[in-house]
Amino acid sequence: MSASPESETISDFPGAVPAPGRTRISIEGRLLRRLLADLGDPPVEFVLWSGERAAPPGTAPAIRIRIADRGTLLRVLGDPQVQFPDAYSAGRIEVEGDLVQLIALIYRGMEAEDVKHSFGSRVARWFRRNQRNTLAGSRRNIHHHYDIGNEFYAMWLGDTMAYTCAYYPNLAATLEQAQVAKMDHVCRKLQLQPGDNVVEAGCGWGSLALHMAGRYGARVRAYNISREQVAYARERARQQRLEDRVEFIQDDYRNITGHYDVFASVGMLEHVGRENYPELGRVIRRSLGSAGRGLIHSIGRNHPGPLHPWITRRIFPGAYAPSLGEMMQIFEPSGLSVLDVENIRLHYALTLRHWLDRFRAAEDRVRRMFDETFVRMWRLYLAGSIAGFETGTLQLFQVVFSTRENNQIALTRQHQYAT
Amino acid sequence: MSASPESETISDFPGAVPAPGRTRISIEGRLLRRLLADLGDPPVEFVLWSGERAAPPGTAPAIRIRIADRGTLLRVLGDPQVQFPDAYSAGRIEVEGDLVQLIALIYRGMEAEDVKHSFGSRVARWFRRNQRNTLAGSRRNIHHHYDIGNEFYAMWLGDTMAYTCAYYPNLAATLEQAQVAKMDHVCRKLQLQPGDNVVEAGCGWGSLALHMAGRYGARVRAYNISREQVAYARERARQQRLEDRVEFIQDDYRNITGHYDVFASVGMLEHVGRENYPELGRVIRRSLGSAGRGLIHSIGRNHPGPLHPWITRRIFPGAYAPSLGEMMQIFEPSGLSVLDVENIRLHYALTLRHWLDRFRAAEDRVRRMFDETFVRMWRLYLAGSIAGFETGTLQLFQVVFSTRENNQIALTRQHQYAT
Repeated sequence: MSASPESETISDFPGAVPAPGRTRISIEGRLLRRLLADLGDPPVEFVLWSGERAAPPGTAPAIRIRIADRGTLLRVLGDPQVQFPDAYSAGRIEVEGDLVQLIALIYRGMEAEDVKHSFGSRVARWFRRNQRNTLAGSRRNIHHHYDIGNEFYAMWLGDTMAYTCAYYPNLAATLEQAQVAKMDHVCRKLQLQPGDNVVEAGCGWGSLALHMAGRYGARVRAYNISREQVAYARERARQQRLEDRVEFIQDDYRNITGHYDVFASVGMLEHVGRENYPELGRVIRRSLGSAGRGLIHSIGRNHPGPLHPWITRRIFPGAYAPSLGEMMQIFEPSGLSVLDVENIRLHYALTLRHWLDRFRAAEDRVRRMFDETFVRMWRLYLAGSIAGFETGTLQLFQVVFSTRENNQIALTRQHQYAT
Repeated sequence: MSASPESETISDFPGAVPAPGRTRISIEGRLLRRLLADLGDPPVEFVLWSGERAAPPGTAPAIRIRIADRGTLLRVLGDPQVQFPDAYSAGRIEVEGDLVQLIALIYRGMEAEDVKHSFGSRVARWFRRNQRNTLAGSRRNIHHHYDIGNEFYAMWLGDTMAYTCAYYPNLAATLEQAQVAKMDHVCRKLQLQPGDNVVEAGCGWGSLALHMAGRYGARVRAYNISREQVAYARERARQQRLEDRVEFIQDDYRNITGHYDVFASVGMLEHVGRENYPELGRVIRRSLGSAGRGLIHSIGRNHPGPLHPWITRRIFPGAYAPSLGEMMQIFEPSGLSVLDVENIRLHYALTLRHWLDRFRAAEDRVRRMFDETFVRMWRLYLAGSIAGFETGTLQLFQVVFSTRENNQIALTRQHQYAT
């Protein structure tokens, strides 16, 4: 069926509204309509600098996106995954409506179609190559995120300073209660006993190591390559008079020495890199005695694939979230036996909602400490992470394992739920 | 250091004792000493037809193995994994002492060294090729094991006729209690509700399907290609007046049609074959609505590898026990999300001990039904399976999953442990 040039501008692009005083849809408006159609026509309206608008037909858009100029739009259309977040951070894009909902709509739309191998994704691969997790590369990557100031993180992580998924026994739990419940959940899964020797790989600001020593009577050696975090954790150990039971070591997990009853790693695997999983397995195996047991807690995926390219470029260089199958490359070649896997992705959405609330309340202080771009970048990262866990684009796996020959394993998981 | 021919027979083969009236160790005795050394010198003594003995030095052997003739020994030395069990079944090898302990000692010794690519293992690969799980191949493979007589299985499986790993809430539970507890554990993991539509892939003699309908008010369509099992299960449904809620279908899981709330498969994956895991995933995905959930219960391994070659030749043709990483080929390509994995290998050792006790008590009846070789073959299969689960050569994984987009998943696993 052919159409006149006049009718084409209307029937081929329903939902597009010309700029005030114009009768035709611009090329930019057409491209935005096609982008929305590719995303499954979410209830989102674009408003251009000219006043021109584009939205799926027949919907009352819940979210409005204002684009400041033609240069921004062209950059976004060329590499939306990286340029949209960058333009939002720079204030060239404004979002009216729920930021989490917007990103969730985009994720759901993207799940429906295959990821394109655009120029942008080739650039993203180049960036990833430069972020390899060698000993030196890991130090650079970790420094980028974790050494930007303990004071900044203290504004929104809460009293525990735990920067990993919390565990909500119920929806009414506070962030602090849920972080303590997470530490107890981990210790119960590990059946931690007084006197147990624990090695922790990647310990953040030390909350789990101190909890294991203070509440369970364990002795803990905790490794971390973030200078700022180790300094903070050591100070906490002094304040809590736990220096004789907890040792914080500023070194890479690959340099762990000694023998232990328990291996624990909460939120470090994301920074290890797939290529190093078998080596991590060998480190674990050589560190554990024959009745050894361990737990790895990590962000994961339903199927293998890189993290969002903007996240690895701006937020977490060198990061990777494995599928459960990929995680098995830690355990299967190394004589380790997987006992228990729990996926608690909805808990990370809850945790992140608490963090985002506190972050937004602290934005003025963050702006004075850094700048407006930093505030918008981090707001977007936290909102996008909520959307990732709510849509199932991201998962959170806790994996309990033991040495293959260990028969002193629990018969049931009842002990994890004892009151 | 050189040794005289005289001293060689003693110092190079400590633990070997010549035949009565002889002063030298025979070539067979030397080979057996080397075999024991390769296995890490377990406390096992071989006694040959000549009266010659071989055992690790300095041990008091807990187990004695009598070999009837030279031909048997040579066959065992050429392909021990297949020929030892065959010779035991034929009565050419006798074991004095605990059969389970013997096999556990061998498994632990074998874990220490790599499996050799012997002529025997090449033959085993040829057998496996002939056991491929095409639609027709699966029918042949399943017929071989499951259609040998319901009366036979009823002698030792207990009232539930469940031929899969039970779940022992405590060590004092009876076999029947543990099988019912397993079915409840599965139903709780699935959060089964009255009116739920369930499809079961591989249903044995129907115990789980009938339990889901009778105790939880579900509607179940259960697929199975074993003619004998389906006939038995239909008769049970009639007796329990559940024909209107449970339908037993004699067909392959690949031919499942319809839409369901729940997918369940307990003890069938072992017969699916790795090459068919992605297809199984597609069958599951197309069968489930957006809030769909499921459970797969299967024997597994800590790392990829074929089952014992004698098991796939004599007991379970076409069978394969996957590592957890291999199991992910069901879920990861198909838009399914893994929520929960539990490894209950010690429960299978307990279950099998109960089965073996009942089997041994029924051996006279089994012998009349089949023959002595059959009795010994099945005794060895059950004892070997106990050893496999106790040594960690075999695992038992229960995997709970849902469709990727399902957010109506439980926040915690507390419901699995409610009383």
